[in-house]
Parts: sequence; C-alpha cells; structure tokens
Amino acid sequence: MNHFADRLTAAIRSKGNALCVGLDPRWESLPIALRTKYKDGTLRGAARAFEEFCIRVLDVVAPLVPVVKPQSAFFELCGPAGMDALQAVLRRAREKGLVTILDGKRNDIASTATAYADAAFGGVRIDDGVYPIWDADALTINAYLGRDSVSAFLESARRSARGLFVLVRTSNPGAGQFQDLETDGRPLFMHVAAAVQNWTRENLGQSGFGDVGAVVGATHPCELPQIRKALPEGYILLPGLGAQGGTAADTAAAFREDGLGAIANSARGITFCYPPEEREWEARIETETRKVIDELAAATPMGRLRSHVST
Amino acid sequence: MNHFADRLTAAIRSKGNALCVGLDPRWESLPIALRTKYKDGTLRGAARAFEEFCIRVLDVVAPLVPVVKPQSAFFELCGPAGMDALQAVLRRAREKGLVTILDGKRNDIASTATAYADAAFGGVRIDDGVYPIWDADALTINAYLGRDSVSAFLESARRSARGLFVLVRTSNPGAGQFQDLETDGRPLFMHVAAAVQNWTRENLGQSGFGDVGAVVGATHPCELPQIRKALPEGYILLPGLGAQGGTAADTAAAFREDGLGAIANSARGITFCYPPEEREWEARIETETRKVIDELAAATPMGRLRSHVST
Repeated sequence: MNHFADRLTAAIRSKGNALCVGLDPRWESLPIALRTKYKDGTLRGAARAFEEFCIRVLDVVAPLVPVVKPQSAFFELCGPAGMDALQAVLRRAREKGLVTILDGKRNDIASTATAYADAAFGGVRIDDGVYPIWDADALTINAYLGRDSVSAFLESARRSARGLFVLVRTSNPGAGQFQDLETDGRPLFMHVAAAVQNWTRENLGQSGFGDVGAVVGATHPCELPQIRKALPEGYILLPGLGAQGGTAADTAAAFREDGLGAIANSARGITFCYPPEEREWEARIETETRKVIDELAAATPMGRLRSHVST
Repeated sequence: MNHFADRLTAAIRSKGNALCVGLDPRWESLPIALRTKYKDGTLRGAARAFEEFCIRVLDVVAPLVPVVKPQSAFFELCGPAGMDALQAVLRRAREKGLVTILDGKRNDIASTATAYADAAFGGVRIDDGVYPIWDADALTINAYLGRDSVSAFLESARRSARGLFVLVRTSNPGAGQFQDLETDGRPLFMHVAAAVQNWTRENLGQSGFGDVGAVVGATHPCELPQIRKALPEGYILLPGLGAQGGTAADTAAAFREDGLGAIANSARGITFCYPPEEREWEARIETETRKVIDELAAATPMGRLRSHVST
C-alpha cells in the first residue's frame, strides 16, 4: 500500500482541490424527510438516518473533493448502532475512492493507544485473524501525553501505511488557555508543531510529505505562517471553515506555494447549508461544495492545482 | 440526584477504601476457558467474552471497592459489538452500586464536546425523547483545547450531576515532553491543575469536594504533593498502580490527611493477576483486590477510613 501522504497528495491532485467535507450528523439538522422516514423512537432509527444521510452526502461530494472527515462523537452519540453507521459510512467513502480522516482526537498511553490506533487503522488481531474496525486512512490525535503516546499511534499507523493529524492549534475561542503558554519564547503549540515535524520526517513519502500532519483551526490565520514554516513536510488540516467563521482567505498561509500541504475542512457549512424542509438538499450540497472549492481556489495557492484537472 | 463528589465520597466511606478497579479487557490475557467458550472467528464473539469477563470481575469486586473504570479503547477495539459490551458492563456496575468512571480521554470543541459528554452522561435528546448511551458517573477528558472545550463537558455533566477527571500529569515515561514545559516558573501540568481547581470550585458538594478532579499517574510521586496542594477540593484519580510500576506508597501524597481525596486505580495488576490457564481466576482476583486494599491502607492515609467499616 502506498505511503499515506502519497495517497493524499494524489487524491488532491486528481480532484484539483484540497477541500475536506466533514461528516458531523446531527438529528435536529437532518432533512425533515429523512427524520420522518427513520423516526421510530430508537437510537437505531436515528443511526440509520445518520447512515443514509452521510452516504448520500458521500455520493454527492465524492466526484468533487479528495477527502472526508467523519466526526466520531456524533456517531458515538447514537451508541453501538451509531458505530455501525460509522463503519458503513467509512466503507462507502473507501469504495468511492475518498481519503478518510477519522476525527476522534484520541489519546492514551502504551497498549491503550495501540488499541485506539489498531481500531482506526489495520484492525484487531485475535489469535490468527485480523479484524478491521474503522479502517480509516488517518486519525486525529491529541499529543498532550507526549512522545511515547504518539509513538504507539505511529507504530500502528505505519504498519498499514496510514496517517496521523496531531492537534496543534485548535479552532475554538479558548484554545489559547494552554496552547499559547510560552516556554523559551515559544508558545506550547509551536513546541507541539516542532515535535510533529520530527515525527513526520521519520517517514517521508515520494511526494516529499510525511505521514504525520497538524490540525490548526482555520480561525487562526495569524498563527498559520509560523506553523507552515515549522512544518515544511507536514500536511496541515484546517477545521473551522464555514460555520465556525473561518474564511477561504484565512487558510491561505497554510498552503505551500505549489498549492499542496493543506486540507481545508467544512462540515455544517456544506452538509447543512439548507433549511431542514429543503427537498433538493443534495443539489444544494453539490452547489455549496463547488462554491467553497471556487472560493479556496481564488483565495489560496490551491488554485494552482486546478489547471491540471479537466472540469 | 446527589452531587457526583458526594456519591463518590459516600461510596469510598462505605467500602472503607479508595481502590478503583480498571476494566481493560484484552483477548490474549483472558482466561483460556473464556476464550474457548466464545471463540467463533467474529468480533461479536470476542466482545461477548469481554462482557462476561468484566461482569464476572464486577461481581467479585463490587462488595470490596467503591469505583470501577472501564477503558473505552479496549471495547472500541471490538467495534460496534464491543460498544454493546461496554454498555452491558456499565449497566451491571450501576446495578451493583459501583461508581463508574468511563476512561475515554475525550476532547473536542463546542457541540462536538457536548456530543461526547451527552453520550457519557445524560444521553442524547432526539425530538421528545432522551436516550442514555454510556450513563457513566464520570468521564476522563483531555484539556489541551482549553476552557470553552472543558465548559461544554462540564455543562453536560452538571445537567445530571456527573463528574469529570481532567488529565493533569499522565503515568507514561514521555509525559513530560509537553506537560513539564515551564511557563512563569510553573510546568504546564500545574497550569492545568490550577484550571481544574477553578472549575471544581464552581460546584462543590456537601462533602466539600467539587465535581472536577485530576488524573495524575501513580508513577509520579514527586509531583503529587504540589498537585494535592493546588487542588484542595478536587479528587485525584491515580492510574498506574500495579502493572505500570506505581506502588501503594507512591500514591500516599495524593490523599488528604483524613484519607479522602484520591482514588488509586489498578487494572491488569488485579484483573489479570494469574496465568490464562488459571481456572479459579475469580478467587485470585478477590485475593489480589483485598491485598491491594491492604497495601493502600498500610501505606497511605486511606487506612484511616477502615475503622468506620465492619470487615
């Protein structure tokens, strides 16, 4: 299997853009027609609605974007049935050729970290068999626990050529409480970025990118240039575009001059860009996806990738 | 429903000790008889083995200890069937009157944090119904994302009188990479501890303890006195006892003089304290649990709680 960053880079080049569609299903935002179809007073009904909704979103966006990012929390909120839905959604995304980032922000130590990572990537080994669980291309993780915690995730990821995205500077208003604390003249998030650079350089692909990237909120344009500079070989995943207030222009500094090196994520801003009573919601999602791609292409170096693609 | 810290304190007083048994099921460590019974080449089989194992552990330890802590990662490693097992294990623990801490180390922002917290605590609201998922008494979280992230978890917890344990200083060898970085003469973990103190003081119970505690590895006895001092109203959860190398004496400084204020967790060291071929494994677990309680009582102020209990 090819190196994670090579698969990601190929997918971005093939689609001519680096938009990631976030899959954050919420019952109260789903199209009313879907809620009516599945409402049966059980969590399994809600989970089935999530599954159909996300799969129809995937069918709309798969020809347009290279990457999708299901948010684990919203599936967990439907319990075990929600985890069934998450598996089905990830399976469909793979079948559609999409690169998948499972947004779980997992973190733990030693064999517990390995358990999360094996679930995310290659699967669990039981006696002579190996059983895949989420089988995602990449997982978001939180590095507060330090190097040996991240190493456990990395070892599992590298056994099956998967990737990690480490939280560096998050998109929320209170992110700075700890992430901005300065040591030796550098804020904590830059210490984490430097560690990400060390990890990603351990395993560079033919694309020149490594298999460990950084998560940096699109809501923090001022911090992006220094993070981009500190992490020349790492992909930067930018949540916060759209509903959280990040604009296409805010993401510009995350991209390299050649248009690679960043992935901009929009979730609600695309998947719930219409009122619940909308019947033609798939058409609305398609239009919005194309619009966000155009905005990113106009406002960032990503636009340079488009000339390679027939549109 | 009573305040979380009051329920926890009452449970500790009632049992006369503050030992928490960690439920970290691993296929390769399970008693061979259980593996043979459930091995059918599916994850559902493995999940059923986890469920029976954990429930039999609960039946052994429920009369002896106040708290149990299932580790989410090992259940997730069996996929959706594992999450069914986690639900069954948490349900049995509640029925047995145990305080339950779900060890998920969750973290995210805004409504995503709320989704994890609602799953852990009061359940998901769908139209007019509320559906519980894990229904745990407390959840471990990672505070790297800062105050508004933690607030989202807290608001959900307080709606149903549950608690949080925030990672402060973890038990792994590389924990210091970020947690020890100093700002204004204090390491990062002490900044987190100070924040935990602010959060816990927002909502003190009649026991005098708040509903937000700290996770501090039992493997870091040197850091415990300053954390105990910085967090006079917060419970300290100490993983790392036993298999990770922490001793009963290492936990002493986490307890207040009156024997309250800390919970010491041992997982593998108790639940897998025998070779897999052992047939009388429940008796071995009971003996080991009593032994660890005796060690804690001898080596820490926790021993002062025992005189109140008929043994």
